[in-house]
Amino acid sequence: MKLATLNNGTRDGLLVVVSQDLTRCTEAARIAPTLQAALDDWATVAPKLEVLCESLAHDAVPSLRFHEHLALSPLPRAYQWADGSAYVNHVELVRRARGAEMPASFWSDPLIYQGGSDSFLAPRAPIRMADEAWGIDMEGEIAVIVDDVPMGASVEEAAAAIRLVMLVNDVSLRGLIPAELGKGFGFFQSKPSSAFSPVAVTPDELGEAWDGGKVHLPLCVDLNGQPFGRAEAGVDMTFDFPTLIAHAAKTRPLCAGSVIGSGTVSNKLDGGPGKPVDQGGVGYSCIAEIRMIETIETGGPKTPFLRFGDTVRIEMRDKAGHSIFGAIEQTVERHEH
Amino acid sequence: MKLATLNNGTRDGLLVVVSQDLTRCTEAARIAPTLQAALDDWATVAPKLEVLCESLAHDAVPSLRFHEHLALSPLPRAYQWADGSAYVNHVELVRRARGAEMPASFWSDPLIYQGGSDSFLAPRAPIRMADEAWGIDMEGEIAVIVDDVPMGASVEEAAAAIRLVMLVNDVSLRGLIPAELGKGFGFFQSKPSSAFSPVAVTPDELGEAWDGGKVHLPLCVDLNGQPFGRAEAGVDMTFDFPTLIAHAAKTRPLCAGSVIGSGTVSNKLDGGPGKPVDQGGVGYSCIAEIRMIETIETGGPKTPFLRFGDTVRIEMRDKAGHSIFGAIEQTVERHEH
Repeated sequence: MKLATLNNGTRDGLLVVVSQDLTRCTEAARIAPTLQAALDDWATVAPKLEVLCESLAHDAVPSLRFHEHLALSPLPRAYQWADGSAYVNHVELVRRARGAEMPASFWSDPLIYQGGSDSFLAPRAPIRMADEAWGIDMEGEIAVIVDDVPMGASVEEAAAAIRLVMLVNDVSLRGLIPAELGKGFGFFQSKPSSAFSPVAVTPDELGEAWDGGKVHLPLCVDLNGQPFGRAEAGVDMTFDFPTLIAHAAKTRPLCAGSVIGSGTVSNKLDGGPGKPVDQGGVGYSCIAEIRMIETIETGGPKTPFLRFGDTVRIEMRDKAGHSIFGAIEQTVERHEH
Repeated sequence: MKLATLNNGTRDGLLVVVSQDLTRCTEAARIAPTLQAALDDWATVAPKLEVLCESLAHDAVPSLRFHEHLALSPLPRAYQWADGSAYVNHVELVRRARGAEMPASFWSDPLIYQGGSDSFLAPRAPIRMADEAWGIDMEGEIAVIVDDVPMGASVEEAAAAIRLVMLVNDVSLRGLIPAELGKGFGFFQSKPSSAFSPVAVTPDELGEAWDGGKVHLPLCVDLNGQPFGRAEAGVDMTFDFPTLIAHAAKTRPLCAGSVIGSGTVSNKLDGGPGKPVDQGGVGYSCIAEIRMIETIETGGPKTPFLRFGDTVRIEMRDKAGHSIFGAIEQTVERHEH
């Protein structure tokens, strides 16, 4: 089942069921007005949505052309956005670039930051920032939406609570991160609104690419129309989603509709840092990573962060080459207040 | 106007208008089913709620006895919970207790952490934790709920967006904080679900105690029935609410219903650390602070963190001694999963 939220002028949008090939959709408002409402009562609502999905597939209900640019993020605002750093390779590279050791515990104890979830960007909305000097960067990630998770849930209970999978652009302001992390309380201004893929899918839509904890497909990240990252999301993910969810639920329950992110998808190459796509590597899912490798290799970064006018595209294709979630495609623009 | 959310078995509860003396309430469901719904359309909804409030005051509508123990947090779940550390004295004491210098910038650049907002505790709900060794502590704070705040809002725009004021118990797990902050990404497991006061009030309900940015009244924190803190919330608040809100909105908009906290209310005494209430001081709004002072004065902490069975009460009274927001009153219990 594939679900999306269309922009109907309301804060939470309109829930629609989308065809497997992303070409058509049908309103689900009589079953649940919004995706959050569906998640709030998933056991009752999901079977009804499945029936509607079947009807759409058989052209048995009125449908509309599905336009990705009319979609909001599946949850335009959510109650919880907890983003992991499951690809520890990414974290190790960041540290190495600034000459810092990464504690060995990072390979066994998941790292998660508490994100803000009140104003997610639409998948085709511009990334508007007041200043290029803030070091605007994308982070290509995968995220899951969970049902209610009780406090202290086991990894198995966490796995059973995964309802939907989607993609994320976790926009980051690299220029603001060092000072903000230096204050000791984590990210706030340096992690502005994230954008999610036009479509969220139930794990069964991924077929064999979903093993219950990871997505085994490459994440396609393009920068200004050129391939920038093709990292395998199922490789080098040190902590799978159930492990991240259980970590997040250690001292609190998670409410239905909580979004848990993987962190920037990142692959090693022969145990070392990766290579750009145009040099035969799988590339990177954020600019910071290539800058770290440039710093390690040449003493300083070469690739600039995003500038006004730059465009980022994040997508994932199945083995047959079909887009699974639709594409996040965002242009960076100057914010005028 | 005073508003509360009654537990009616739904996730977001039932919005009620509460009488000024907190004794009676009347359903507001025909105006807005939930507080978030009211905040989503405040300009339209607030005048109608004001009329209902007037009607309640004149006994012109059916009303019920208001029981604080039947209230959920005004927003049982929210889209944004950003908690400041506006009482910099508190931060300075924490640092001094562990022999660390506080950067001078902490007096000019607000410190805010991104909290989790998907599962707030009811004001009379127990604080259930699996392990006393996590160092369970209360933090008595004030919070405001804002309307939509655009990205890059000025302090004046931020001030104009404040809609409601309430109290918070920002439950903290002191034993988990050092390791978690040491990982560099801020709090997650160490800041479990917070609880808010039974009632949220419009700023005008505070009369002269509200100056547009701070609440000038003492925050009463009791531990096991004994006065523990009586710190003046209007004193030593280095950053007022508009400043905190503008800081939070620098790189993102804030959605209507976002909750912004003050951080632990804390007063200096003659430029130095405070004294306990039973020694004539204003005491503390969290246990960590008295432990810091004990550490500074005697080389080690004496007061234990909360144990199973301990009860915390947080309340604020007007000049005439009447409770403004009702009381947060929570007992610590063992969580069994």
